[in-house]
Amino acid sequence: MTTLSEVARLAGVTSATVSNVLRQRGKVGEQTRQRVLEAVAQLGYRPHLTARALAEGRAPTLALVVSSIANPFYPEFALAAERAARERGRFLIVCNTNDDPDTGRAYLDQIAGTLSDGVLIMNANLPMDELKKTEQRGAPVVLCMWEKPDAPPELPCIAVDFYAAGATAAQHLLGLGHRHIGALVGSKKSGIHAERYRGFVEACAAAGIKHSLQSARYIGDTVEAGYQATMTLLREEPTLTAIFASNDLPALGAMNAIADLGMNVPRDISVIGITDIQWARVSRPALTTVAVPTEEAARMSIDLLLALIEGRSPSPVMRVTATPQLVQRASTAAPRKRKG
Amino acid sequence: MTTLSEVARLAGVTSATVSNVLRQRGKVGEQTRQRVLEAVAQLGYRPHLTARALAEGRAPTLALVVSSIANPFYPEFALAAERAARERGRFLIVCNTNDDPDTGRAYLDQIAGTLSDGVLIMNANLPMDELKKTEQRGAPVVLCMWEKPDAPPELPCIAVDFYAAGATAAQHLLGLGHRHIGALVGSKKSGIHAERYRGFVEACAAAGIKHSLQSARYIGDTVEAGYQATMTLLREEPTLTAIFASNDLPALGAMNAIADLGMNVPRDISVIGITDIQWARVSRPALTTVAVPTEEAARMSIDLLLALIEGRSPSPVMRVTATPQLVQRASTAAPRKRKG
Repeated sequence: MTTLSEVARLAGVTSATVSNVLRQRGKVGEQTRQRVLEAVAQLGYRPHLTARALAEGRAPTLALVVSSIANPFYPEFALAAERAARERGRFLIVCNTNDDPDTGRAYLDQIAGTLSDGVLIMNANLPMDELKKTEQRGAPVVLCMWEKPDAPPELPCIAVDFYAAGATAAQHLLGLGHRHIGALVGSKKSGIHAERYRGFVEACAAAGIKHSLQSARYIGDTVEAGYQATMTLLREEPTLTAIFASNDLPALGAMNAIADLGMNVPRDISVIGITDIQWARVSRPALTTVAVPTEEAARMSIDLLLALIEGRSPSPVMRVTATPQLVQRASTAAPRKRKG
Repeated sequence: MTTLSEVARLAGVTSATVSNVLRQRGKVGEQTRQRVLEAVAQLGYRPHLTARALAEGRAPTLALVVSSIANPFYPEFALAAERAARERGRFLIVCNTNDDPDTGRAYLDQIAGTLSDGVLIMNANLPMDELKKTEQRGAPVVLCMWEKPDAPPELPCIAVDFYAAGATAAQHLLGLGHRHIGALVGSKKSGIHAERYRGFVEACAAAGIKHSLQSARYIGDTVEAGYQATMTLLREEPTLTAIFASNDLPALGAMNAIADLGMNVPRDISVIGITDIQWARVSRPALTTVAVPTEEAARMSIDLLLALIEGRSPSPVMRVTATPQLVQRASTAAPRKRKG
């Protein structure tokens, strides 16, 4: 592979001059600059990014730790984060923990501060003190979608008002006339979807509708879990006219279950989700959902991480995205008049 | 951050000894080894991966260049490739070209041989001579899903018999009794889906059925393109009883179009795809498809790339995956008796 000094020799300058030209630093005359660039082109020289980054005391990449890229939301977020990183001249390494905290810990140990000089954390299920240790060792950490804007964490974060998302979903169903609404919560009771469910429950209460705990199910955040839970929920609670799911995947599963039970969405049962993944648009009927500003959250996450790396931001700090918005499609309608 | 020499000082050994312990190289007595490991733990020292890799003359990551991670097949492949890479102690960087050859070229220029010491190429639409240049500069390249096992390229590749996949799809529809079959080809005429279509056409011909060119559409490899093409195809060719799509995404779009036209899959029209992405299982009706061995192709791609990097394989070389297999679900059935 061509070296810097070979370029310098051909151009008749010092290595430092070649380096200055390539980094657009220092004062170099136009003629010299041209000669260096010609030598670079002639020899096919490529500056050694990793070596250069090390020499400059920084690692060349950013890392994104996600719990599972098999969940289609994460590739959509990763795509947006990667685009934002590339626009700022950085490469993004996507690290997938497969929902295993040990794998997450191994990633932090092995790449934070060495291969990557900053880490985005997306629902990777890692203990906060583990993440703080990473930050203390000099690699900034940003939590990408913090769900409680009113309770900032001890780490930098981009917050999304998921409470509002849940409330918006409830208000939509209530506005259509629904009074008996089932809830599929795609996490444990105190898990990452708790805020969405709380927003839903409190919006119901504010409208004078008591949401019965019997109509809620805490399940996995998957199509399959939404499917199974809907099958039992509709058997045990036959008066339900709508289902609120805390995420689009269980909502899509609910729609499949309702279809397989020989019923129609939205004529017999309305379904609403949260997020607005690609498949919400593509499903039949298309899914009504409360859209999370994924693109914006990704861009804000990258910007905050770079600000921390470059010492332009204190830590901790919280920035909040735009509020999630209702996207009305074909899976919700007024409830049918009940028989008898 | 703690340095190697601080660890050496605390353990009372030379830096070389610390290095030998951490790399499990050289002869180090058990007592010394323990003392070094204790010092490492006490100081929280982490070997600098990037620096070590450079010292050993290798870059620490592998790169996967894909045309779009918004296409849900690519995250599934990336997930499998990442798992295989991690099992072999490597990190995988996912580089997304957004279908833009210039972006792909920039990735090759900037990471091949520097940040990554080998590159997997997945349908990234890059000219072959560009890829060969990358290989000549010392960074091995593997084409992940070469579609013509009978015509090996000039670069190392993992080949999938996509001709057989197309033929299998045709044989399934013909076996059900279909004689008028439309085709959605998710690439240009000479593009990456050409082999799948050729397999389909020749299997029809072998069964004495002439597939009319009028019943074929060359379209984008998306749900939306499959939807639009099916809308016009069924209007222009009302005798069709089945649709073969060269990929699952246009097949899913075809099913949506048929539903929106007020018809039923498979009662009125059967639909079959190729690949078996997650959404083929989840869609209603579930999509019959010819499954590509994604997991196996990803694993073989990583193994071949490492063999090339470590000089254990000549270049070019081709390895072929298991043959794609029919997965029969609910979107195909015998054609209805035609009226009149």
